[in-house]
Formats: sequence, C-alpha cells, structure tokens
Amino acid sequence: MRPLKDLRVTVVGLGLMGGSLALALRPHVAHLMAVDVDAETRQQALAGDVVDEAVSSLAEGVREASAVILATPVHTILEHVADLSRLRPDGCFVLDLGSTKAQICDALSALPSAFEAVGGHPMCGKETAGLGAAEADLYRDQTFVLCRTARTTPAGEALAVALVKAIGARPRFLAPDEHDEVVALVSHLPYFVAATLMEQAAAAARENEHVWPVSASGFRDTSRLSGTSAGMLRDVVLTNRPAIVAQLRRYRDHLEDLVSLLAAGDESEIEAWLAARQREYGVYRREK
Amino acid sequence: MRPLKDLRVTVVGLGLMGGSLALALRPHVAHLMAVDVDAETRQQALAGDVVDEAVSSLAEGVREASAVILATPVHTILEHVADLSRLRPDGCFVLDLGSTKAQICDALSALPSAFEAVGGHPMCGKETAGLGAAEADLYRDQTFVLCRTARTTPAGEALAVALVKAIGARPRFLAPDEHDEVVALVSHLPYFVAATLMEQAAAAARENEHVWPVSASGFRDTSRLSGTSAGMLRDVVLTNRPAIVAQLRRYRDHLEDLVSLLAAGDESEIEAWLAARQREYGVYRREK
Repeated sequence: MRPLKDLRVTVVGLGLMGGSLALALRPHVAHLMAVDVDAETRQQALAGDVVDEAVSSLAEGVREASAVILATPVHTILEHVADLSRLRPDGCFVLDLGSTKAQICDALSALPSAFEAVGGHPMCGKETAGLGAAEADLYRDQTFVLCRTARTTPAGEALAVALVKAIGARPRFLAPDEHDEVVALVSHLPYFVAATLMEQAAAAARENEHVWPVSASGFRDTSRLSGTSAGMLRDVVLTNRPAIVAQLRRYRDHLEDLVSLLAAGDESEIEAWLAARQREYGVYRREK
Repeated sequence: MRPLKDLRVTVVGLGLMGGSLALALRPHVAHLMAVDVDAETRQQALAGDVVDEAVSSLAEGVREASAVILATPVHTILEHVADLSRLRPDGCFVLDLGSTKAQICDALSALPSAFEAVGGHPMCGKETAGLGAAEADLYRDQTFVLCRTARTTPAGEALAVALVKAIGARPRFLAPDEHDEVVALVSHLPYFVAATLMEQAAAAARENEHVWPVSASGFRDTSRLSGTSAGMLRDVVLTNRPAIVAQLRRYRDHLEDLVSLLAAGDESEIEAWLAARQREYGVYRREK
C-alpha cells in the first residue's frame, strides 16, 4: 500500500461530510484537492485553507488524483462513478461516503479492473449542512462502515482502512445489503419517526397557539431529524425503499400493539412495557 | 399578596424537579424546607445546603409552611392533596408540579376554602433523575404551565406567577384539560414514539451485532426519551390515557399514509413529503 503521505487526494463535494473529511485528512496527505460546483464554496475552502486546490469540474479534479473520495448525495455519486472510467482510463483508488451502499457498490464493482474501489458510509453528521458546518473532529471515534466490492484488493482495503483511521474514525466492514438493512433501522426509520411526529405537531400548532410554547426538550430531540435535507433523503429513499418500508411496517405493528395495550388499560401490563423500554435504553447506553 | 421574601416554603419530593426548584427558589424566600422519604436524599440536601431543613413526614413538613410545592409523581401528589385538609385545617398556598393536570386540579379544587391552590407543570427536565441531577438553572427561560382551580383567587394566582418568575421560568395559563391534550401531543406522544423505536432496535440488536455500532447521533436523539423513568410515566399514562391513545391513533394513521406513499414510489410525491417536513421543522425552530 502506498503511504498516505504520498497520496494526492481529491474530495468531490465540499458539504458537511466532504468538508469535515478534508479538514481531518489534510495533515496526512501530500495534496488535497476539492471538486465543488459552487463557486462560493470553492472560494470559502481556499480562503479557509481547507484544501490545496479547488476546481469545478470532475474531469480536472480527478486527472492526477491517486485517491478520489466521493462525498455528494447518492445519485450524484452514481453519476460520478459512471464518468470515472472515461475520465481515468488508467484507474485510481475510489472511496465514497454515500448513505446507501447496495447500488453504489454495484456501480463500483462494474468499474474497469484498473480501479481499486471501496464503498464507505461514515455514521455521523448533524442537521446543519454545508462547508460552514464542517469540523475536523466530526469523524472522531465514530463508526465508518466499509463495503468490499469486486474492485477491492487487499491493498485497496488497507488504504481505505488507513484513510478512515487517519480521520479518527472506526472502520467496520459490512456487506452492502447488510449495511442497507441496518441503516434502514437505525438511520432511516428514526428520520421517518421524527418527521411523522413533526407532521402531527405542526398541524396542531397551526390551530393551537400553545403547542410550540408547551413543547420542551423531549419534543425537540425526538423531532430533530425532521430537519434533515429533503434532497439528501430523496436519494436515500429511492435507493433503499424496500428496506425502509419493511422497517416502517414493523414499526406500525409495534405501535398497533401499544395502542391495544394502552386502550385495554391493564396497569401491570402497561408498567411492564414502560420498564422494558427503560431497561433496553440502559443496555443501549452501556453497549454503545 | 405576601412578598416572597416572607414566605416559608416546603417542597415535597427532592427529585430532579423539586431539587432544582429548591436551588432556584432558596435565595428568594424566608425559609425553605424539604420533605423526602429517602434519608440519603435528605442528608444530601442538607450537606449541599440546598434547603434550610429536611424532614421525612408530610405532617411535619407542612405544619408551618405558608406555601407547599408538591413535586412528586402524580399519584403521590393526589395522596398528599387528600392529606392536606387534615394536616392544615387553617389552609395554606399549594402549587404542584405534576405531569398531568385534570385529576390533580380536580383534587385541588376540592380542598377546603381556607386553601389557595394552583396547578403547575414546568415544561423542562432531563432523562437523569434525582437530586444529584438537580440544577438551579433547569427552569430558566422554560415554559411553566399554570392552571387555575376553584381554589385560585387573584392573590393566589399572583403568588404562583411570582414563584414561577423567581425561578426564571415563563408562566402560561392553560385550562387543565387543554394542558393534558397538548402534553399528550408534545410530551407523551414523543415518549411513545421514541420508546417504540427503542423496542424495535433493541430486538434487532439482540440478533445482530452491527446494530448498536452502526447507530449514530440521529438514533440516539430520537430514542432518548425511552430512558424516562417507568414509574413516573406509569402515573402519566394512567391519568391521561384517552388523550394519549387518541394522539397515538392519529400518529398511526399518519404512518399508514406514509407507508402507502413510499410503497407507491412516486418520486415527486415522496420529495414533496420530505420537503414539507423540513419546512415545518424550520417554522418550529423559528417560532420556538
């Protein structure tokens, strides 16, 4: 494996994730270039000394890169992967940060054999988007899922692990399908749960002036994910729909059982349900 | 209205809420006494100079109080209100901090006419309980719901407002039934939404070692309320069941519509749903 310090890295997309990765990775590599379509973002990145160079075109950005890191929403990642074989006939190393992995890893696997490619998904973020919100510590101690593709050799795998460790994250290998199943449960279901809560409360707040003043930190935290970028989520939903629908149906069934339990009104059964959830929360906090 | 600085206040229950109230109120009143059944809590309160005096019996605690603040779970508040007419035949001022208000305000309204009584519910808290978690700033800038009862005169109302303002909170008058309707939506529904998410994820985590490591801050925040004390919630559920069940049924209907939307797979309709939630979140953040 080529040492990190000799790498010319190009990060495509300087949003929260790409920008934070650039900040964290820059001290470890020979040269860091950014590709971003937005002129203001490029200027901000250069002014803030986040990158060595910033360009608008993917062709220019990847021409001399030894490693390309794709950090845009999923559908743009898929478009860029499709362009890479033409733009880099000699191949290079490719890692992506897309929120769903099955479709992207299929695309990475279909790259010519001159490429080394690993799928990635860092399990961190926040509800504020853009380079302005980026921070070098965003990845620190967070799980970074890696998925092997048909274009992953041991050397490519080692490079992916080295990049993940350089930004302070914890690599964890999962098959693309298993990743998509697990994030449907721990990322996408929480979003829809939060957004449906927001839908219901917002409708009530339009009729009743007391709703927002009476809401407190419990509502704020439970509904926070409803603020997630609709554009990013659109890609997530369109590339992981069956798994999300399955988790939502399961959730609805749990809710149906809960409504029956509460409507029946048996005190000891209600108490047992509440105590079980408090215990599960304790297990989660200990194990996480 | 008697000035605060002449008041002898007794706080019944030195948990997170009662303890934080004692810390915030003490500089403003003549004498602050606590009633708590737990000897260790009483000792901790005296050692930490949280109160002037701490006793174990309600009778002793309320004997010379000009104002009694009931800060235990709902069913204990109801028991204490029932005891007050016998313990204080001459009456006193009573405020409570119970999470639901209709049953408590009915009990307060039934006190002898020598009493002044106002129902209260401060819209703050955290998932760690007990005096150890108490902090003087817990109430600062938070909404404190007040409910008039049949035992609320203008002087009693003014005293309740003065107490609420002394701890830095914002008084807001609601009818008991309206309070219970609104908290069913903004407090109890978020709890059940979070707890059902925890139920589903915990079941999956028992079968799949990747679930907790892949879960990130979005899951953490959306599920946080599942850690709320089962004992406290039991009282909430038993005293506000119809309103909670109604909100949960409405939530289930929203979820049903969402599953249909996602299953149908119309890109523009999915995008419109996601964008509407992001907009609502923005309105909530601006108005809150």
